[in-house]
Amino acid sequence: MVGGGQGAFIGAVHRIASRIDDRFELVAGALSSTAEKAAASAKELGIAPDRSYADFREMAKAEAAREDGIEAVSIVTPNHMHADPAIAFLEAGIHVICDKPLTVSMEEAERVRAAVEASSAKFVLTHNYTGYPLIRQARQMIERGDLGTIRVIQARYAQDWLAEAPEEDNKQAAWRTDPKRAGGGGAIGDIGTHALNLATFVTGLEPEALLADLESFVPGRAVDDNAHILLRMKGGAKGMLWASQVAVGKENGLTLGVFGDKGGIEWDQENPNYLTFTRFGEPRQIITRGGAGLGGGAGDWTRVPPGHPEGYLEGFANVYTDAADLIRGKGDGALLPGIDAGLEGMWFIEACIESSRNGGTWVKR
Amino acid sequence: MVGGGQGAFIGAVHRIASRIDDRFELVAGALSSTAEKAAASAKELGIAPDRSYADFREMAKAEAAREDGIEAVSIVTPNHMHADPAIAFLEAGIHVICDKPLTVSMEEAERVRAAVEASSAKFVLTHNYTGYPLIRQARQMIERGDLGTIRVIQARYAQDWLAEAPEEDNKQAAWRTDPKRAGGGGAIGDIGTHALNLATFVTGLEPEALLADLESFVPGRAVDDNAHILLRMKGGAKGMLWASQVAVGKENGLTLGVFGDKGGIEWDQENPNYLTFTRFGEPRQIITRGGAGLGGGAGDWTRVPPGHPEGYLEGFANVYTDAADLIRGKGDGALLPGIDAGLEGMWFIEACIESSRNGGTWVKR
Amino acid sequence: MVGGGQGAFIGAVHRIASRIDDRFELVAGALSSTAEKAAASAKELGIAPDRSYADFREMAKAEAAREDGIEAVSIVTPNHMHADPAIAFLEAGIHVICDKPLTVSMEEAERVRAAVEASSAKFVLTHNYTGYPLIRQARQMIERGDLGTIRVIQARYAQDWLAEAPEEDNKQAAWRTDPKRAGGGGAIGDIGTHALNLATFVTGLEPEALLADLESFVPGRAVDDNAHILLRMKGGAKGMLWASQVAVGKENGLTLGVFGDKGGIEWDQENPNYLTFTRFGEPRQIITRGGAGLGGGAGDWTRVPPGHPEGYLEGFANVYTDAADLIRGKGDGALLPGIDAGLEGMWFIEACIESSRNGGTWVKR
Amino acid sequence: MVGGGQGAFIGAVHRIASRIDDRFELVAGALSSTAEKAAASAKELGIAPDRSYADFREMAKAEAAREDGIEAVSIVTPNHMHADPAIAFLEAGIHVICDKPLTVSMEEAERVRAAVEASSAKFVLTHNYTGYPLIRQARQMIERGDLGTIRVIQARYAQDWLAEAPEEDNKQAAWRTDPKRAGGGGAIGDIGTHALNLATFVTGLEPEALLADLESFVPGRAVDDNAHILLRMKGGAKGMLWASQVAVGKENGLTLGVFGDKGGIEWDQENPNYLTFTRFGEPRQIITRGGAGLGGGAGDWTRVPPGHPEGYLEGFANVYTDAADLIRGKGDGALLPGIDAGLEGMWFIEACIESSRNGGTWVKR
Repeated sequence: MVGGGQGAFIGAVHRIASRIDDRFELVAGALSSTAEKAAASAKELGIAPDRSYADFREMAKAEAAREDGIEAVSIVTPNHMHADPAIAFLEAGIHVICDKPLTVSMEEAERVRAAVEASSAKFVLTHNYTGYPLIRQARQMIERGDLGTIRVIQARYAQDWLAEAPEEDNKQAAWRTDPKRAGGGGAIGDIGTHALNLATFVTGLEPEALLADLESFVPGRAVDDNAHILLRMKGGAKGMLWASQVAVGKENGLTLGVFGDKGGIEWDQENPNYLTFTRFGEPRQIITRGGAGLGGGAGDWTRVPPGHPEGYLEGFANVYTDAADLIRGKGDGALLPGIDAGLEGMWFIEACIESSRNGGTWVKR
Repeated sequence: MVGGGQGAFIGAVHRIASRIDDRFELVAGALSSTAEKAAASAKELGIAPDRSYADFREMAKAEAAREDGIEAVSIVTPNHMHADPAIAFLEAGIHVICDKPLTVSMEEAERVRAAVEASSAKFVLTHNYTGYPLIRQARQMIERGDLGTIRVIQARYAQDWLAEAPEEDNKQAAWRTDPKRAGGGGAIGDIGTHALNLATFVTGLEPEALLADLESFVPGRAVDDNAHILLRMKGGAKGMLWASQVAVGKENGLTLGVFGDKGGIEWDQENPNYLTFTRFGEPRQIITRGGAGLGGGAGDWTRVPPGHPEGYLEGFANVYTDAADLIRGKGDGALLPGIDAGLEGMWFIEACIESSRNGGTWVKR
Repeated sequence: MVGGGQGAFIGAVHRIASRIDDRFELVAGALSSTAEKAAASAKELGIAPDRSYADFREMAKAEAAREDGIEAVSIVTPNHMHADPAIAFLEAGIHVICDKPLTVSMEEAERVRAAVEASSAKFVLTHNYTGYPLIRQARQMIERGDLGTIRVIQARYAQDWLAEAPEEDNKQAAWRTDPKRAGGGGAIGDIGTHALNLATFVTGLEPEALLADLESFVPGRAVDDNAHILLRMKGGAKGMLWASQVAVGKENGLTLGVFGDKGGIEWDQENPNYLTFTRFGEPRQIITRGGAGLGGGAGDWTRVPPGHPEGYLEGFANVYTDAADLIRGKGDGALLPGIDAGLEGMWFIEACIESSRNGGTWVKR
Repeated sequence: MVGGGQGAFIGAVHRIASRIDDRFELVAGALSSTAEKAAASAKELGIAPDRSYADFREMAKAEAAREDGIEAVSIVTPNHMHADPAIAFLEAGIHVICDKPLTVSMEEAERVRAAVEASSAKFVLTHNYTGYPLIRQARQMIERGDLGTIRVIQARYAQDWLAEAPEEDNKQAAWRTDPKRAGGGGAIGDIGTHALNLATFVTGLEPEALLADLESFVPGRAVDDNAHILLRMKGGAKGMLWASQVAVGKENGLTLGVFGDKGGIEWDQENPNYLTFTRFGEPRQIITRGGAGLGGGAGDWTRVPPGHPEGYLEGFANVYTDAADLIRGKGDGALLPGIDAGLEGMWFIEACIESSRNGGTWVKR
């Protein structure tokens, strides 16, 4: 693991997610760029001192050289520290599981892409919401035509935790609102990319053009905290995407609606064990995770019977477990977001910024 | 009543709405442009034969001349038949309660405005969703600052009844998808105007500019059936508005979210007796119509205790009852949509069409 | 109308309900037992002075004698004033629409039954919740076997308005907690009878025995404010019924669940435009009022398209409109609660009291 | 681990739950009473062959003798195989984490109690629903008086998976409907005990008496599949408890409502990240897991920020993590169900059976 030392948030999430299905063991880490903190964090997590590194390059090199070196690394640092470690491990032939967004710039993203292409190692980007069983089932349903031709996509990711300028010592808020560490995007990078990825993952459609109206509502904020985005997808579907960190009353309101000429679905991340599905002219159905009727699909990625809720960590674990399968040569990783999803996200961030700077104009891909 | 004869939909709604609080009596009508149908409809509704007219102009003249002539007229015809009757009755000094949208063109709308200004009679536009008690309470709450400065508006009006080309004999669908009778707007006129009106009514903010991406998804349709709209409001708030008649699974999905720097609200027309309200940093509250806590406001426009649901017809009745008060000189009609709301709606329709024709560009008001 | 003068609650509800479909006109009344108040109330409601009576017996006699006398009377007095007026009007050959519960004792109830049997006039008991379109549809669905053999009934009617001793001047609370005016039952009579009636109306099953554990939680209260009841239905189904006026957080929480060997339904009065329906082994469906699929039934008793919510008043209006049909000889009134429902309700109240007095034992019907 | 071999359900759940917070390692097991299956299961789970036992007694003895022997054992066998292993490990001084219900008879239960009292080892019963963060917070809220004096408890646990006679080869259904392996209770033992435990855990109240009306709706079933239960709690609160395995449309519908003289709460296991809380006379609040306002409590037992749902496995993991703390001498285990909860559950099962056999009479504790 690179990053994820004391005080970090997403590192702990990755560790639980990797552990749930017992497919990974944490044996080495460069958990912090501060040597002392790296060592202390490693000790807490039961990593042997000789496999706790102060520097990710050293770790890539040393682990690649060991007989019992790590097979895969998780990169859970702030955005500006994704590209270099990813490239270092890919070059060392170690599989990379990297947090999103891919990088802080398209230029960096292209460098990672080149490294992925040159390496024998796999690259997985943890767009974890794709791991929710009913999201995967929705993708299946659309693939097999249950919704007909897709016409409209409605995606939202609304939070309120940045509705006011955060306390000075809020580490999570600090780097996310700092363009140097987060990249030029605020809400669009941190959560907008998730919403876009969810939409493209489920529908199988790619964006053709977008138009964005970004805003920084909180005085003094250097990045956007609210984004209104129109999408035009290849093939003719249209979309709306709202990403906000200032929507008071919203905790982690990631929702997706997809509407085709034969059917429609709606899903809400805060209550992810239900999928609303309507065939045109029939009553609305509530599909459950592995439940009756259309429930087959989701049941493939679930651990407990329907009615026993699974959540964020189990969805995240599905990404890790699929990554383990991919590394072990089992399955084709078709459901795993990788470098393409990363590049799409980087295009999204940069196109949003460009569009908004021009007063809200269309930007083609 | 003008329009609302046999086979009509909204006329019957107006009649119930006007009757609920026992403030109106239906005594005269030009219920159809077909004389026979007008007479037959009048008979069914208990209108005396001598007060059933085949022509609205004749009706305006005759009723204005009678000692016991009508005090107010409801105009419930398709959109292209709003302007002329409205002007005729206003000129005859008879109060006008007119269905929305105001007219089929800004030019017609201006003629109505001139007639309103020249007349001693009142003009009410039945943007009936403003009559929902909790919508009025939301307006009060925003007015008194419960949400702080408004930042974001999210409005949706999604239906699916036009997801396929309707049967030939669907009278309601026929005129709504015919530009001659509905005006150039499809979804934007029929439901988009309601969503915009709801947003401006509740927030007290006016649109400064909009950008629209309209689409006619159903082959052969002459007007839009799906609209993605970005809004910029005077004062700096931003909005998104989705109007759709092809969103499979949606029946009458009119929802509103308003987010300020101190609080946020959400409301859903399909379950209108609840309002979600969050003060930043406090738990979400479920406000009920006349219920505990902040419930005072809505209780002023309600007939039964909280927990006993009121619906669409009662909301509509509130507009009628307020109109009766206004006519009787009681109250200032501050909550009643009138000619200004009508003109705003016409601007909205025309600006959407212009924006979309230009490929999706900003149109200022 | 008998009762329903100034300060009354349910009288106004009856008046709106009777007006919504324009099938009744209010022309006479004995609106209060206080002559002055009766006259003032009548004036407010537009009743001619000569048809405002201070006494219901006088009204029955006078109206029966008039050529243009009333055809039907609504009795909306407190419970202890139901029997005598009902009998007086039935004897005068005037149809009776009476609020529930039927009376304050089985002895009175039997007197009303005798009067109904002896009279040519019709008798309707306003168990208004049976008027909700989806409740009627649920009954149809069960009748035609969609749920199979019914096994379990779960009925709840939970409120909180009597969670504390009410203010002295709360007229509604005062008579409802006074055994002389309400009868021996508190929650069981006021709301428990509604829950039982809803269950028997929807399932078509009759109670065979019950067991009740009644409680008066609020100090000094003379009647029950919380009731836990077990039901055994003829044919083998079992039920639970909870009626409470002290369930903090509940406004008018009347819910019904019915479960058979082939399917199950759930319904909530506070959001009555949806019915959850599951066929065993299939996904849950959300049936809407007149909506797609199974929605046919409810559409027969509805005024606006699905997605436009109807509520308490429209459900109540359905009972009045059916009563008008019955009086006019149209339809067989099969959906109208009448004297049998009234007697069943009285048995319920008395059996609950008996069971609870005996420490919670089974009482057969 | 004892039990939990191939084809078992709850064993895998225990393994994930124990792993989530990285506090346990699985190193030994008697995973099946069939030697071959035990060995194969152990291999699959990475247990060394010399620590895979065919017999739990042998395992208790051998592990107690090892320097690196297990500190704790999880017993995840069918109910009739709880008592003997629990006693064997307790006698060997090894901590026991045992699935519920405690045993199949009170006599067995008392034997376990004696072993717990005689042993230095700890005993934890996995009434896992007590691990849900908001359930623990609800307990805190009631303890500190937020609801005032508790008056009414409404508990339900409704499923539909046994609505028909299950397929022959459904291992989970087979033992649960076999009195020899499940004990005399069907629904009451498998899920009713959970509902009771949840109610007593949250309120801190103990049952004083109960009355049960049990039914086996599915032909040929030897145990109850639907239970209607009335509760009287020490101190005067009253309760209703419904447990059903034949409620078509219900997956794992465990819900709890608690109503006091100052406030009320409601919670639903299928969407466990929300708690509805109402103070009398104030609007309903939606409390989230670690969210704003009253959210403090639940945040202590949660891994991700509010809005990121946690579910069944995380709740279960909280029980395991607390057990680890207890074993390590950290904390007092006050939130952990133990032998007392087990005995209460056994009384519940036996009292239900006795009450129902007597036709539905009160049984005191």
